[in-house]
Amino acid sequence: MWISLSENILRELDGIKCSLEERTDFLNNRVRPVVVTYPSRTEEVAKIVNIAREHGLPIVVWGGGTSLAGHLVCDGCILIDMKFMDKIVEINDTEWYVRVQPGLILSKLNDELKKIGFFIPPEPASSFACSVGGVVNNASGGMRSVRYGTFRDWVLALEVVLPSGKVIRVGEPFVKNRAGYDLVHLFVGSEGTLGIVTEIWFKIIPVPEEVKYSIMMELSDFRQGTEIIRELRKNRVVIDVAEYMDGLVAKTINKHFNTNIPESVGGTITLSSSSTYREKIEKVLRQHSITFTEVDEDKTLSERALAGLALKAEWNERVSEDIVVPLSKLDEAFMKIKELEEKSGVKIAILGHIADGNLHPNILISSRDDPRLTKIYDEIGRIAIVLGGSISGEHGIGYMKADLMKEQLTAHNGIEVLKIMNDIKGCIDPHHFMNPGKFVELAWSRYLINKD
Amino acid sequence: MWISLSENILRELDGIKCSLEERTDFLNNRVRPVVVTYPSRTEEVAKIVNIAREHGLPIVVWGGGTSLAGHLVCDGCILIDMKFMDKIVEINDTEWYVRVQPGLILSKLNDELKKIGFFIPPEPASSFACSVGGVVNNASGGMRSVRYGTFRDWVLALEVVLPSGKVIRVGEPFVKNRAGYDLVHLFVGSEGTLGIVTEIWFKIIPVPEEVKYSIMMELSDFRQGTEIIRELRKNRVVIDVAEYMDGLVAKTINKHFNTNIPESVGGTITLSSSSTYREKIEKVLRQHSITFTEVDEDKTLSERALAGLALKAEWNERVSEDIVVPLSKLDEAFMKIKELEEKSGVKIAILGHIADGNLHPNILISSRDDPRLTKIYDEIGRIAIVLGGSISGEHGIGYMKADLMKEQLTAHNGIEVLKIMNDIKGCIDPHHFMNPGKFVELAWSRYLINKD
Repeated sequence: MWISLSENILRELDGIKCSLEERTDFLNNRVRPVVVTYPSRTEEVAKIVNIAREHGLPIVVWGGGTSLAGHLVCDGCILIDMKFMDKIVEINDTEWYVRVQPGLILSKLNDELKKIGFFIPPEPASSFACSVGGVVNNASGGMRSVRYGTFRDWVLALEVVLPSGKVIRVGEPFVKNRAGYDLVHLFVGSEGTLGIVTEIWFKIIPVPEEVKYSIMMELSDFRQGTEIIRELRKNRVVIDVAEYMDGLVAKTINKHFNTNIPESVGGTITLSSSSTYREKIEKVLRQHSITFTEVDEDKTLSERALAGLALKAEWNERVSEDIVVPLSKLDEAFMKIKELEEKSGVKIAILGHIADGNLHPNILISSRDDPRLTKIYDEIGRIAIVLGGSISGEHGIGYMKADLMKEQLTAHNGIEVLKIMNDIKGCIDPHHFMNPGKFVELAWSRYLINKD
Repeated sequence: MWISLSENILRELDGIKCSLEERTDFLNNRVRPVVVTYPSRTEEVAKIVNIAREHGLPIVVWGGGTSLAGHLVCDGCILIDMKFMDKIVEINDTEWYVRVQPGLILSKLNDELKKIGFFIPPEPASSFACSVGGVVNNASGGMRSVRYGTFRDWVLALEVVLPSGKVIRVGEPFVKNRAGYDLVHLFVGSEGTLGIVTEIWFKIIPVPEEVKYSIMMELSDFRQGTEIIRELRKNRVVIDVAEYMDGLVAKTINKHFNTNIPESVGGTITLSSSSTYREKIEKVLRQHSITFTEVDEDKTLSERALAGLALKAEWNERVSEDIVVPLSKLDEAFMKIKELEEKSGVKIAILGHIADGNLHPNILISSRDDPRLTKIYDEIGRIAIVLGGSISGEHGIGYMKADLMKEQLTAHNGIEVLKIMNDIKGCIDPHHFMNPGKFVELAWSRYLINKD
């Protein structure tokens, strides 16, 4: 459908595929652009950026729409939907990189790579739906980050359309490059606020030849699980995956997807590592009298990846938190969340990449307008801050966590850090039209308002 | 020795250990501060920064003095020598991090970590002498970067004294943290131009339990070596170490350190990996009829680490280049360097972390005043640029490579990238007194001069 917007803009966008539509993201946040554009190459993206800047319109980029902190919310923006920029440009099995366009779905990329024995390790639960541009803009993590880090560790170089419309490349398609400040990592995790990623060079590595050892532990309580994790770390066990899931999540997945996940009262942990650690792991498990069974890793993790969909299907609204705390503080964080649940009367289901200290308490509520929601959301973030942790491990900030981010930086880093971030935003996007009013910019403006 | 500098500055520095002395760095560059300060804690560093800013004096930080691109050159600066800020503050074997002060020597840190089964993998040949603050400021690489990346991949958080004198922390002491733009990576590799690192949180990992397989290949020519490396990569072999050394380097080490490294005409490669790859590796070696012997990795790499000292002892001046090229371009780079050697009549010995595409051609010359030196140095950098590589893989830019950096960014990235870097420098250090006149600042000013 062609738009009936301003004649000027329409004429200027001529040749680029467009439509007029509203959307909601995975959290049901509303996205109301004046026009949705579907560029097919970098030059078209640059053209859209120039048009937006000249007309004073915000730009928001849509990859898979799976973001979880309101990154995509807009009212009157030009939305750039990357669905037609979804090619694998090159797989280089000597230099060990892959060059891709941002609209590609992550699991499709890994499927292609696995055919030739390679992969990119971080595995968000949304792999089947999220775009590679999205994981770069969010520095996403996932289920293998305890061994392999987040996407921050897997980007070599980026092609970016700057707010000026100029096309640049940051980084080089190899690991060692010292030519200037590290702008690659500045763009990774910048949530579309500094420019538009139009091409990505990811590092790839061979799928390890090691035999895997995967088990599911059934816990009598949460602390039993965290004790195991801490003890395994102290025993120098390299954990690949450690996925915690409480009984409520298990029950909800079982109900909606006909699975058979144990609904233990203390929850379960799916633990995976190289089989070289088998003996060490089993020794620790025996010492703690843990019930466990060997499982098929792929099957178990695919079932876990259904959690988001199941919770969304069961409750009207499901808002996922994403805090990180030091491993030594996991029990305290858990207890405080449970206290909050009791006090508020709102159910909170808990998932977690537990060996990263990364918990996803899911607030389950019938309406986004329930005033308890924001309060609980922020309180959970504050639990992390007080315990020396982070208000977001992998979902990012968007507009929903800007206040919390300001609080974390004030408490742990010094407010000067937020000022530097905001200055950098101002240098690169002086017209403030790249995903504006969110993330760093919003956190800084909240600081300025509260200061006075 | 106490200084007899300006009475004011002397009075203001009261309580901080100082001396008056000149130095040379590892490349014989002259470092002529008005005063050398030896702070013992962060507050003293902040005090020195405030004094320097108020008096308009540049600040340069000295760790191990091993930098190789003139980072430390100064005339009239306040030098901050970190030798008394060299403590291990905390080793946390559950969270898997170590917290250290910047003046600590890298090998001392790894010695302590190895006692309890941990290490930080990147291993510069200068480990025995370089400081941890130095490797952070240079995003240093080394002999294990092909498997484990550079120091860019191992820093979780930093305490930094900003040019304003304010003390901040960037990052959190764990892997997943999405609170704002990634300033950690901005400071890593910033060569002391944005602030002064006063504390570092490094990621640590257990020393792998795997059995190692280490061999030395004796090559008939360089291409034979690069073919092997490319073929191993194509065969999905994860290489830990691949150190190339030409016959001249071998001969020079043997002479000065009484070692017995093979002086093959085509050079040698020390190759190390997990023994799980043994069969694959030997198959490739047999196909190429390569002569090889199993070696003790520690012994062989310690001998290789003597190269810098040996070349320095044998020739009056030895200037090490540090280019990176794609693996497919290694042979062309080598050939062009050899042509340059022949044309100029100046000997160039070659070392290389060859599986990273990272070559260290060492220009061997009797005097730094020889006009051929700069010409050869720049020509080698340009070989990398033309072949799609980088003018520095791990040594950094300092003042010696600013022009080349400008050329690389212009050719590969877009000059806009250098402008962004310079804008960031201006935001964070508006008085331009943090290691001034080098790196990004110098490259940008060279661009402005040549543009007109």
